[in-house]
Order: sequence, then structure tokens, then C-alpha cells
Amino acid sequence: MDTEVVTETEGDQRAPKQPVRVVVAGATGFAGQELIRLLARHPHVTITAATGSQATSTPRSLPSLSKIWDGTVVPLDADALSADAVFLALPEKASAELAPALLAKGMRVIDLSGAFRLRDETLRAKFYPATASQPGGVAYGLTEFEIESIKSAKLLSNPGCYPTASLLGLLPLQRAGLLKPGADIIIDAKSGISGAGKAATDRTHFSENHGSVAAYNPFGHRHTPEIEQALGQSVTFVPHLVPLDRGILSSMYAHLVAGTTAAAVANAFERAYANAPFVRLTGDTLPEIKHVAHTNFCDIGWKVDEATGRVFVVSVIDNLVKGAAGQAIQNFNVMYGFDQKAGLL
Amino acid sequence: MDTEVVTETEGDQRAPKQPVRVVVAGATGFAGQELIRLLARHPHVTITAATGSQATSTPRSLPSLSKIWDGTVVPLDADALSADAVFLALPEKASAELAPALLAKGMRVIDLSGAFRLRDETLRAKFYPATASQPGGVAYGLTEFEIESIKSAKLLSNPGCYPTASLLGLLPLQRAGLLKPGADIIIDAKSGISGAGKAATDRTHFSENHGSVAAYNPFGHRHTPEIEQALGQSVTFVPHLVPLDRGILSSMYAHLVAGTTAAAVANAFERAYANAPFVRLTGDTLPEIKHVAHTNFCDIGWKVDEATGRVFVVSVIDNLVKGAAGQAIQNFNVMYGFDQKAGLL
Amino acid sequence: MDTEVVTETEGDQRAPKQPVRVVVAGATGFAGQELIRLLARHPHVTITAATGSQATSTPRSLPSLSKIWDGTVVPLDADALSADAVFLALPEKASAELAPALLAKGMRVIDLSGAFRLRDETLRAKFYPATASQPGGVAYGLTEFEIESIKSAKLLSNPGCYPTASLLGLLPLQRAGLLKPGADIIIDAKSGISGAGKAATDRTHFSENHGSVAAYNPFGHRHTPEIEQALGQSVTFVPHLVPLDRGILSSMYAHLVAGTTAAAVANAFERAYANAPFVRLTGDTLPEIKHVAHTNFCDIGWKVDEATGRVFVVSVIDNLVKGAAGQAIQNFNVMYGFDQKAGLL
Amino acid sequence: MDTEVVTETEGDQRAPKQPVRVVVAGATGFAGQELIRLLARHPHVTITAATGSQATSTPRSLPSLSKIWDGTVVPLDADALSADAVFLALPEKASAELAPALLAKGMRVIDLSGAFRLRDETLRAKFYPATASQPGGVAYGLTEFEIESIKSAKLLSNPGCYPTASLLGLLPLQRAGLLKPGADIIIDAKSGISGAGKAATDRTHFSENHGSVAAYNPFGHRHTPEIEQALGQSVTFVPHLVPLDRGILSSMYAHLVAGTTAAAVANAFERAYANAPFVRLTGDTLPEIKHVAHTNFCDIGWKVDEATGRVFVVSVIDNLVKGAAGQAIQNFNVMYGFDQKAGLL
Repeated sequence: MDTEVVTETEGDQRAPKQPVRVVVAGATGFAGQELIRLLARHPHVTITAATGSQATSTPRSLPSLSKIWDGTVVPLDADALSADAVFLALPEKASAELAPALLAKGMRVIDLSGAFRLRDETLRAKFYPATASQPGGVAYGLTEFEIESIKSAKLLSNPGCYPTASLLGLLPLQRAGLLKPGADIIIDAKSGISGAGKAATDRTHFSENHGSVAAYNPFGHRHTPEIEQALGQSVTFVPHLVPLDRGILSSMYAHLVAGTTAAAVANAFERAYANAPFVRLTGDTLPEIKHVAHTNFCDIGWKVDEATGRVFVVSVIDNLVKGAAGQAIQNFNVMYGFDQKAGLL
Repeated sequence: MDTEVVTETEGDQRAPKQPVRVVVAGATGFAGQELIRLLARHPHVTITAATGSQATSTPRSLPSLSKIWDGTVVPLDADALSADAVFLALPEKASAELAPALLAKGMRVIDLSGAFRLRDETLRAKFYPATASQPGGVAYGLTEFEIESIKSAKLLSNPGCYPTASLLGLLPLQRAGLLKPGADIIIDAKSGISGAGKAATDRTHFSENHGSVAAYNPFGHRHTPEIEQALGQSVTFVPHLVPLDRGILSSMYAHLVAGTTAAAVANAFERAYANAPFVRLTGDTLPEIKHVAHTNFCDIGWKVDEATGRVFVVSVIDNLVKGAAGQAIQNFNVMYGFDQKAGLL
Repeated sequence: MDTEVVTETEGDQRAPKQPVRVVVAGATGFAGQELIRLLARHPHVTITAATGSQATSTPRSLPSLSKIWDGTVVPLDADALSADAVFLALPEKASAELAPALLAKGMRVIDLSGAFRLRDETLRAKFYPATASQPGGVAYGLTEFEIESIKSAKLLSNPGCYPTASLLGLLPLQRAGLLKPGADIIIDAKSGISGAGKAATDRTHFSENHGSVAAYNPFGHRHTPEIEQALGQSVTFVPHLVPLDRGILSSMYAHLVAGTTAAAVANAFERAYANAPFVRLTGDTLPEIKHVAHTNFCDIGWKVDEATGRVFVVSVIDNLVKGAAGQAIQNFNVMYGFDQKAGLL
Repeated sequence: MDTEVVTETEGDQRAPKQPVRVVVAGATGFAGQELIRLLARHPHVTITAATGSQATSTPRSLPSLSKIWDGTVVPLDADALSADAVFLALPEKASAELAPALLAKGMRVIDLSGAFRLRDETLRAKFYPATASQPGGVAYGLTEFEIESIKSAKLLSNPGCYPTASLLGLLPLQRAGLLKPGADIIIDAKSGISGAGKAATDRTHFSENHGSVAAYNPFGHRHTPEIEQALGQSVTFVPHLVPLDRGILSSMYAHLVAGTTAAAVANAFERAYANAPFVRLTGDTLPEIKHVAHTNFCDIGWKVDEATGRVFVVSVIDNLVKGAAGQAIQNFNVMYGFDQKAGLL
């Protein structure tokens, strides 16, 4: 019943007779490389292929992964893939086109794009116009809150980086009924530049970002409906770019139901994450990006102002790990009955 | 009547017969060094002394200012100062003790600490306990909005860095009556590490900040009452440290009076700063810290969501220039009838 | 006789009856924007046009220079230029093509590209193949060492950023005869990313540089022959990219003539720069980039190991100021008889 | 005979009947925390205690290691330690005092300080005066070149961070007889700020390093004799601080024996590291810090100028992993017969 409680039943993990055969599609992007880095040391996995999203006819190596994974990246050929599970680290249009074919072959698909995140057709048409139709039975992979639907998922839609950080900070309060209905929720999020992608643009130029901070896309970012869908409430969300490579800090401002104590807030967080191996609660010592960079942890701290009924929540993740590749593998572990932490510590 | 309109009457600027003799007290801190750097090239100023806040009995030079200002920093001796005006870049306790004596000698005082910013005795006792009493007739040096009282000020209290960025972003809307009374105002501010001061602490260690972001002091920062005093309304203010040296970006979330159009918001900003030489409006191209670093500019951009009646405002400054030394000199220029831009371009 | 001594005869500076009319060609690049920023406040200059190197048919503004310079950037049309002097911040091919036409019109040209830096035809053909022919009478604008030829220059070739930092550190020793003939000279230079240009490439992507350092082009960089030409001796030069925006630190390792004392080295530096307003000697307190960023200063420090006859010299500049736009204006000042510091402090 | 060839005989690794019990002394410093982070997931290790180098009487947790290692840091009490092996991440004076007592108890000691790195008494007295006497039989833990002596070591002295990066780049050439005897070797090394230690000082202040580079301690750094001892030749070594947290890039300039080809140089590197799991050769694609940060890899690239007989070598490591904690564990693995990679991938 208590769906926000993660039940990590370490005892009944299946010991796989043989490794799960996985493919990483989109292996040359930031998330794709992080997937390979992590999967290469995963105890229950064999990478059978890594495919490049860029048009290329010759296999090529990934020098930065040398001696970690020494395979080659080959062009994507859906018909030739041999796998139990496929990680899609592709643009949403490519994911939307590819996933149904893979599912039809009986493969399980873990998609890191936004193609399958929004259930509402109208919103999807607006924010992800290249992905108009959508298979049924998609599981939304916010591991800590969706574990039951993830276990049996054939198509897993991995959450966006901003929604992951924000929802893990807000859902415990929402599920515990502590958020004042209809009151303002402001999410001011700060992301490292890897969140802007690997393409070389003016926006990702070093000199544009060093020594600078920039807000972008206020009111209009497509992670807003994703957060609202999971939270069941409208929010104001504004992302910012900060001069670091990896990490997100999400600052959240909300109103509490009248009479809510600081202790009640703390209790809500503790109950929600009692069994979550990758959420660390820091209480009123606010968390910092540094402590989660290069890990799958989400650290959460908060401060309650009982006099005014307000709560300030801070949540930090590595956008490429817990916000992308790490959470995808965490979901994979749940899908295959492995320890959530397998390959992630 | 139109108090938010800065009137910069370039015509009647006094041409000083001889330079104004100024002293910089606290010359070894970040703000003090920036003051000297700027005052050394000011066309109407002679620096008669620079004093060190640290106990030292021998004069010492400032190598980073070599060939810009080649004087020496001497111990502070209030009786020996010879000056028309004194800039105090000292801790608030030292400012509170020193200012009355300097005023009694007929000097004009420009104080960069928080000693004289809050008018309310109770708030001052809470946030600045070392500064219990306060002279009458203090001018609050938010230049663009207080120009008349600054002209005749004997004791000028220079605003805090966060209040400068935040108030310049919100006051045009407040003065134009566009902010919905009593509605939430959230200020999420991001500051470079120089804002944490020159002292070597765990908080200012390079390794604690590189690749990281940290929120601090939610609900309790002493710049909150300063903002509320000027705005006449309560706000939620949370500062953050971001991994850069100089600059503040303040993100502000507010509600508009019903029916307010985007055009009305733009008009309010344009009217407020029609004659302000150091405010640049960027409209819906949101401003970035990079464009104001090492300058006295404040760049302001905004986005209105007419459907929900919300406005998002972004304001950026260099915390050591417009947020400290630069604005202090801008105020000095107003006090002495010089062009506001003298020494600042 | 003593050509390395800069004679800055402040007394005989011409007071211009009317401002010098200048054009900046290539106004949208890093160096071009820095030129406009500095020239806009130069007391003896009027900017008559700024032209864009990119194909564009409509004038456009430079938002980051708003209220500093509010002109528009127009397409380059050599026939339409009205100017006494033209700053070329263009690729070398464009400079090589344009300069002769401008000279023919009687304009003085200050070129910031490499088109005219190398006198040797063979070397120029190798390192700057697009610039095969070259006008006579080019002055090499290393201000502190070439002041006499700069005064009368019609075509001034502004030094490269690395050569500026390196030569200012080595020439005093070379001119004083203290460098051991034929012995190794190693120059290991570190540059901020703005040195890699404004184009968005994999090399300038934030994520490739944050938290990283990279050496590039060992033995083959085209600044090597420029340094050797001025020094009259071969050197080993290797540039590196370091994760900052603006600045170069050049580390130089050389052998001294037998018996050279530390005092003799110090004396050589002091004599060379006795009258140089933009060179600051820091002795054995080694200089750091931070102290010269956003200035036209070159700070130089050194350490002598008398036992082994070695000297280590460190020189720092801002690559966009002393290494480009600032030195160009310093040279302009010399060409027109102004104070070297005009517009640069 | 061929001592530079690492023989990694995976077949004969002992499978430990029970985990090795280890203690980390100095657990609150940068290296100490990295040791715990890595040892906590080491498959053959149990951490029996972590001790704090700072005077403290109460156990305390390490929040950043929460859910990785949830033990407490206790005051150091040599008599109470129960361990098979002790990692000392202490100042050299503390290491020098403590190691003999631990050895006397039969424990194996892995020391990360400089206390036991120099064999020459005179040099040690000069560079490490607090460590005058030294036990016999110390193994120098440059894993790739000292594997036989490491296997049986009771007291292992872990190399300095700069020597690790530099020696791995130079020793293959030296062992192959390709370095011209007596000719200049210049090592220009760039380190992240974590190399300056965890203490908050002016040197480690964020604002002193952001946007800056600084050379320090030319000719006099104590890593110089360590490099010379292993290389058997004098070198000129100058370290620099660059604005990043973790990583060293060492640029090395050397002369080759007449007639040495690029192919011979490549061959020397390939032979030296044919079986080294943590050295990756990048040839003339020069390596960058980014690719080794947070790993135990050392990436090495080079460029030969056959015409002049010069070679330029670049070596990169993470100073806290391969330059400290990681190499210490690699050595521990060799000492106990485990796979070198255990706990390090």
C-alpha cells in the first residue's frame, strides 16, 4: 500500500545463470558513455553491442574507456541486435521509432530520452512532437517511487534529470499529505553544462559559461509537465546553467499544510527513503553537488520555517548518473531482480 | 514625484576646483582593494590614505595594484585621517564604532558594511547585534532609487550585494503597482565565492566549491530584512554559492496584479531606468553574469506568463563592483555632484 | 642605443586637435569585442565603424557592450571605410588581402592576425600559407622592445599572445647577454580557453575543459618561429589549455652564461622595463594570471639557481588584452604620440 | 631481469580465506577519505578502524561517505589497533614515529607520506627533517616498476603524486637506454588544488585560484630528489597549480640518444606497460586530465622530433587516486597477491 517505501528485498534476488545481454544505443553521447562505463563492470551484464547515433560506417573505439571497455562502436542496425535488454540513449525521435521494433522482438527497452515520459497526448504533442504515438504499459522509472511497475516493465521510460532531482525532493511531502493544496511550488534548478549535451554550440562554449550563470527557458521547459504529472500539481520550474561539468542542485520552495512541524517533515522523508540505497538524507545540513558527483546518490536536505508554514528543500544528483545512466541501470536491476546497487557502487 | 526615475542631470555637475581627498579604510579586503583600484583612476579623487583592518604596525604595499596605486597601507588611526570623505570597508562593528567620530570631524562617510542598513531597532539588534545605536539621517545608497537623499547624505549606507541585485529587479514592478499584494515573492540568489569573504575557511576552500553548488542560510540571512525594508513586503530569500569568483545572479519569482500584460511589465522597467547609466534591460533575453563581471552594470531581464499572472525576473551584478565598491563610488559621485559614471567606465 | 629601454616621454605627447577616427574590422570575435570595449573609452578616439567578419547583410548590435558602445556592426566594405586607422581582428587570409588596399588609401593599419608577423618567406609559406606576399616596412608591435619602429609604422603587426608573454620574459636576458648561447630554452605555456577562439568546437566545449588540462601541438605551433625570430635563437615551445577563460602563464627554462648572478638577472629585468608602464616585476614572488586578467599588464617573476646556472622565468598576461587588443591600442598610442596608457587604465 | 615489465599473473592470485583487516590512519584528509571510499568496496578487505589525525575525543562520521562506509572516525591509539595492514595518510612526522611501532607488532604498513621515500640520509635530512632515521627494507611503491620488491614489503612507501606522473612518463625511456646521458630533462607539472591539501589557507582559497595559474617552488620542491633517485639522473622540476580540483598533467622535455626513432620510443612505452592494467598509452594523441580523473589510470602520450632528437612526453593521473590512495591499494593488492585491479575498477 505504502508505495513510496522502497522495498529492497535483498534476499530474493535472482542469481542469474548467465549474464544479461545488453546493447547500448547512442554510445558516443554523454549518457551513452556513462552507461558503458558502468555496465562494463556490472557483475551480471555482458555488453553485446554499442551503437553510434552518428552516421558512421566503420567501427570505432572509445579511447576514454580504454581498459574499461575495449569494444567498438558500430552503426545501429536494429535487425542485427542480439540482446535481452536495450538501453536507448538517443534523441527522442529515434527512440520513438526504434522502441516498438525492439519490443516486438521480445527485448526489454530502457529509454533515456523524453519520448515516453508524458502520458497526456496533448502535452506530448506539444513538448515532444516527434513522438506522437506511444505504446501502452510504459513504466516511469523513478525507482524509489515506482518499484512495483518497474519490476515487470517491458518499456521503461527513464526520468529526466531535473524531474529526478525535483521529484525525489517533493514526493515524500506530497505523498505524506504535507503540501498545502494549490499553493505555490517553485523549483529553481541549477545544472552543470553536460546537461546541455555534447554538441558544440555557443551555449556549451567554455568561455560562455566560465565565471557565469544563466537562467533559461522559464515557464516553458519540457521537464515541467513531467514533474507536474508525477506530482499531481502545477509547479513553476526554471532551470539554470552553472559553471561545472556534472551535477544538478534543485532548490524547492513550498507551503506546508497548517500546523505541520519540522519533525513531521523529517519523518516524511525518513519513511519515504527508509530502504532506498541511493537516497541520503542530510536534514538541515544542506547537501552539495560535490558529494554526489560521479555517484548514483541523491542527497536531500531541507529547512522548515514553522512560523510561516514554508519548507525549503534541496536535492542534488549527478545528472549523468542518477539523472540518466545510473538510474537507468538501477531500474534495470529492479527489472531483472538484482540488487539495486549492482554495478553502481 | 516619480521617485523611481533616476535623474542624471549631466549639465549641472560641479567641476571640482581640486580633487576630493578620500580615505579607504579596510584596504586589504576584497571590497577595499576594488575601491582603491577604481578610485586610483577616478578623475576627481585623491587617495590620501589606505588603512588596513588587520593589526599591523608597518606600512605595506598591495602588489596586485602595483602601477595602479603605489601607496602603502597603514594602520587605522582615526585621529590622523585627513580627508573629505571616508570609505569604510570594515566589519560592521568597526564601522559602527568609527563612523560617528568621522562624522563629528565633518567628513562624509560611505559605509560598505551592514551597520547602518536596517532602520528598525529590533531587526538591527537581531541581525547586527554589534551595532545597536545608529545616527540619524542615514541615506540608503541604492543609487537608482534614492538619488535625492544621497545627494545630501553625510552618512551613506551602501546596500548589500544580494539586496542590490534583488531590489533593482523588483522595485520597478513594486513602484509601478504591478506586484500582487501579499503574494509570494521568492528570491533564489547565486553568488560567486568572493561573496564569502577573503578569510581562508573550509567554506572558501577551492576543493569545496569547484564542481559544486551549495545553498546556505535559508530563511535566516540578514539580507532578507534589508530587502523587505526597501520593498515594503516580505520575501523568501535563499542564497547559494556557485563555483565562480565574482558575480551574483538573482532569480525572482513573483505574482502580478490580475490583468497585467507583458507590455506593462516592460514599460515599468523602461520607465524606472530611463536615465540610469548602469542598468541595462535585456527583456526576454535573460542576462548572464559574464556580461557584468568587472563592471558596475546591473543587467535585468524578465519573462511574463500572462496566463498565470506570474513574472520571472533575473538580475545580475558583479558583487564587488555594483554590489560593493562600484556602487559606493557611484553614490560618492552623486554626493559630490559628479557624473555618476566618473571613474566607473 | 639602448633599444630595450622604453622611453616614455610623457611631456611631448601630442594633444590631438580632434579624435583619431578608427575602424574595428572583425568586431564580433573575442579580440574585436575587446578592442571596441577599450576604444570606446579611449580619450583620443572616435570609432567610425565596426565591421563583422561573418557574412551578414544587416547591422546588428553587441548586447554585451550596451551603454559602453551602442553602435552597430555592419558588413565589411573596404571602399566605404572612413578612418585614419584600422584595427584588423580578422583571420590572416582576410588581413593579408585587405591591408594593402587600406594602406593605399593612406590609412594606418594595426593587424592582430599572424599575416605579417614572420619576415622569412619560407617560414611564412609554411605557417601562414594564405599570406604569401607581404608589404615592406612592417613594424613588429612588441611595444616594450620596438618602440622606435612603431612610432612611424604604417602597417603594424601585433604579436601573438604566446610570443608576447614569452618574449617579454626572455628578451631582457637575451639583450643583456645573459643567456648561454645555443643552450636549451624550453617554453611551457598555459592559456585560457578564449585563446582557442570563439568558434564552438569539441575543443572549446565546456565539458572537455572543465577539470582538465591539455597540451597541444608540440614542436609545431606557429608561434614558435615568431618567438625564434625575435629572440634570434631556437626554442622548444609547447602550449597547453587550462580551464580558465582569459590569461596566459608562460613558464620558461633557460641556461645562463657561466657566473651569472641572481643580482645580474634582476638588474637586466629592471633596466629593460625601467620606463615600461605595463610591465611589473615581481622578483622571486612568482606572478599569477589572476593579477593581470582584464588588464594590459605583463607581470614577470623569476628564480635563479646559481649553482647550476639555470634560470626559471614566469610571465603572465591577459591573452585578449596585452596579448591582443590592449597591446594593439598601446601600439596605436605610440604610433599617434599619445601616452602609452591612454584608454588602458 | 626485465624489471620494468609488470607481470600480472592473474592465475596465481591467492583467494583469501577471510578478508584482510585494514586500518586507515588519517581518515579525514583528502587521501584518507579516498582510501576509505575505495577500500569500502574492495572485495577482500574489512576496514577495522579509521582514525582521525586531528585531536578529537569523540567518534565522528564522514557524511560524504554515508551509505558507502558508515563507520566512525576515532582518535588514533596505536596500542588499540587490530589490523593486518595499516594505511598511513598522515603528515610525515607522524608516519615516521608510528610506522616502527606498527611493524614491530607484525602489521604491514603502507605509508602515503614522504617519510620513507628518500634513501639518501642527507637528502632526507634536508627535505624531510622530521624523519631522520628510517627502517631498512622499505619498498618504493611505484607499482609498474617495483613489483617484485612490493610483493614482500613490510613497509611500503607510496610515491608522491608528481613523481608518480613523471616517472611513469620517463622511466620507460630511461630503462630502454633512449635518454641522452647528462642532457637536460625539464618537468613542468600542473596539479589541481587538492594537491595543496585540505587545510584552508590563502593558497587554497577559491578566489586565489579560480581563473588563475601559479608556479611555485622552482628548483626546491622535495619531489625533485624523489624523481632523481628513481631516474638516476638530475632533472629540473617545477610544479604549478591550475584551477581544477583533482588531477596532474606532467609535461616532460628530454633529449634522445642520437638516431632514436619515433618507433623506438613507441616500442619502449609499449614494452614497459604491456601488462600494466592501469597505464594507457595514447601515442601522439596527447592525454588529458579529464580522462583519468576519479580513476587509477595513468595515460601517457608523446611526440618525437626526430630532426632535433627531442621527445615531449605528457602523463596524466588523478593525484588522489593513482597519485595517492589508488596506487596505495594497487600496492596493497600486490603485497597480498590479489589482482592489481581489485577494488579499483
